[in-house]
This record gives sequence, structure tokens and C-alpha cells, in this order.
Amino acid sequence: MREYYHSELDEVVHQLVTMSDSVQIAVRDATTALLDANVSVAERVIAGDLRIDAMHDELEQRCFTLLARQAPVAGELRTIVAATQVVADIGRTGDLAKHIAEIARMRYPDHAVPEPLVDSFRRMSDVAQEMVGKAGRTLLDRNLEEAHELVDDDDEMDNLRSSQFRQIVSEEWSHGVDKAVEKAVDAALLGRYYERIADHAVAMGRRIIYIITGEAPEGDDWPTT
Amino acid sequence: MREYYHSELDEVVHQLVTMSDSVQIAVRDATTALLDANVSVAERVIAGDLRIDAMHDELEQRCFTLLARQAPVAGELRTIVAATQVVADIGRTGDLAKHIAEIARMRYPDHAVPEPLVDSFRRMSDVAQEMVGKAGRTLLDRNLEEAHELVDDDDEMDNLRSSQFRQIVSEEWSHGVDKAVEKAVDAALLGRYYERIADHAVAMGRRIIYIITGEAPEGDDWPTT
Repeated sequence: MREYYHSELDEVVHQLVTMSDSVQIAVRDATTALLDANVSVAERVIAGDLRIDAMHDELEQRCFTLLARQAPVAGELRTIVAATQVVADIGRTGDLAKHIAEIARMRYPDHAVPEPLVDSFRRMSDVAQEMVGKAGRTLLDRNLEEAHELVDDDDEMDNLRSSQFRQIVSEEWSHGVDKAVEKAVDAALLGRYYERIADHAVAMGRRIIYIITGEAPEGDDWPTT
Repeated sequence: MREYYHSELDEVVHQLVTMSDSVQIAVRDATTALLDANVSVAERVIAGDLRIDAMHDELEQRCFTLLARQAPVAGELRTIVAATQVVADIGRTGDLAKHIAEIARMRYPDHAVPEPLVDSFRRMSDVAQEMVGKAGRTLLDRNLEEAHELVDDDDEMDNLRSSQFRQIVSEEWSHGVDKAVEKAVDAALLGRYYERIADHAVAMGRRIIYIITGEAPEGDDWPTT
């Protein structure tokens, strides 16, 4: 019985990693849709989010069943409770990738992101994908060191966002970018979506540290969400 | 022992309601700070979020302890698991109120919101406060009807947001609003924060329906987050 329980738990962790792989791909594709103004890729990301939501619901249900079936001991309980939270973070990251794809689709055949911000968004996307991938791997390998690295990665995301804000409110933007206000609004929201993806990866790192050590990391470096 | 368990559970629910009351006030005050350009109220909201985060951590820990202490039966298990999710929603709503206050503080002594959008933001704030309050009351009264109303309330929030977007990208905005780009970016992000507060209230309604009925509500009306 105990053995069955453990194999069920392992299965949940593996499904979480599969789900985080899917979401990492969604972030990559949403960025392609955005920067190449590719509407068919955008549609694929938007449609694909239904599958990610279904994985979310199934995994959440599996965690509840595991909690109900047998009184889990401390380490197991931590793993299951943290898994319900990680599944929420990954699901939410999928929603954010969908939001990015929706902006790409809304502006098509225009590019939502004007030339001066293309490199910055490409870098944001790389950082976000790397963070989601790292969070997934950490879950599988129970690698504390990688989980801690997520805080530093998040600093780069914050810096990218600050530098985008400076560009958007500059004189060059107002006078040099066509539809300056609309593009500014899109860029502000897009920047917010990538930043939130990074926040969720940090939150996953936090959960994983809790699973491994039994202690939630403390301090301002670890936002609660 | 069973009795002690139930009183512990009741206590968690009451603390959740207290926390949602605090967050409702934070949303109200953040809006005052924003629309009156009142920096001392903004500071109070920002400082107060530490207290909300502390309530979050304490309540989350209590839920984990309840899960660990004694194998809960089905209804109890549902309540505790949903409580861990509701506490996350309320905590996140507090963060969003803080973000609103931070924009008010950043633009002080200027008003972040230009005159043409003041009424719209005031209404958004009223809807958001009403929804947070309703979600809290539903938790206490186990009132299914009120929990279902949250979906309709959310429709009003979405309409307010769409109408703000139309105003922001209009000719009148570009030519009539001082610092048009900066104000557009602020308004887009502020609108997003109020919208997310409403989303979290809807998610709380969803959790509460799950606690009461044992079934998660289905359909597009019920976003997963």
C-alpha cells in the first residue's frame, strides 16, 4: 500500500514536470507569435492552453485524492500540498503565455512590439523560459542550488522591465514610434506578463525548497507569490 | 479530539474572513491614495501589506498543521485544501492593492489617473471591494447564491476595462492628456490590477462552491484563477 502511495506521488511529480515543459514551450511560441507577428502560432498557443488547463485540473484532483486516500506522513504531506501550489503556478504561467499570444493576435498583421523593444522582449522571453525550465528540473532533481538561483534570474527580469519603462516614457518613443500610446500600453502589459511568469517560477522554487527542507525560505528575496 | 478539530477549522475560516476584511480595506485605501494623490494613505497601504503577508503565512501554516495532525474526512479535507487556496487568493489581492498604492506614491504629488478616467477607476474600485466583501461573506455564510453572483460582477469589471482601453487609445487622449504615454501605461497597469482583484474574488467563489458542494463549478464562466 505504502509502495503504491509512493509510486502515485512520483507520478504526480513527473506529470508536473511534463506540464512545466509544455508551459515552457508555450512561452517560447507565444514570443515567436509576438515578435514575428505570426498569427497561426498565436492561435496554436491560445488553443493549447485548454490542454494545459486540463492537465492542471487533473493534477489538482490527483493531489486531493492522494491527500484523502491515506494519511500522508510529514514529508509526503509537504510534497502533496506543495504540488497543489506548484500546479497552480504552472497553470497560471500557461495563462500568461496565452495572454501574450492574444496581444500578438489582436495586433496582427501589425507587430505589437515596435523595433526599439524587440531585443529586450526577446531577452525577457529567454529569461522566462530558462526560469520555467529550471523550476521544472529542480522539481525532478530536488536540486536546492538551482532553486535558489531563481531569485537571481528574477533580478534580471526586473532590470529588463525597468529599462523598458524608461524607453517607453522617453521623448524618442513619443515622437519616433507610430501609435505611441497604443504600443506603450501593449508593451507595459506584455512586460507585466513576462515578469509574472518569472514570479511564478520563483514561487515554484520556494515550494520546492519547502518540499526538500521542510522550511519555507525567508526574506524579501522570496516573494510570497 | 474531533470537537477540537472542528473548532480549529472554524477558527481558520474566521481568520480568513478577517483577512479578507483587511484586504477589502486595503483596496479602498489604495484607491483613495490613487484618486486623491494622497501619499500618506499610500504609505499606509504599502506598510500594511506586511501584516497581510504575515496573516497569509500564519494561516497557511495552520492549514498544513490541520492536514498533518489528523486524517481529515472528506468535507474537512475539502475545506482545508480550499482554505489554503483562498488564503493565497486573499494574499495576492493584498499585493495588488499594494501595487496600486505604489503607483499613487510614485506619481505623487501628481495624480496618476487623469480626469477622464477618474469615475471609471472609482467604479472599478467599488466593484472590486464589493466582490472581495462578497467572497468573504460567502465563506462565512456558505451562501451558494452569492458565490455564483461573483461571475456577473466580474463581467462589469471586464466591461469597465474595455471601455478604459477605448478611451486611452482615442485621439482625445493623445492630444488632451498631459504626459499621454506615461498616463496610458499607468492606467493600463492599474486597470489590470483591479481586474486581477476581481479574478481572485471569482476564484474564491469557486473554492467556496467546492467546499459546500464537493464539486468545482465548470464552464468558461469560471476561470481557473
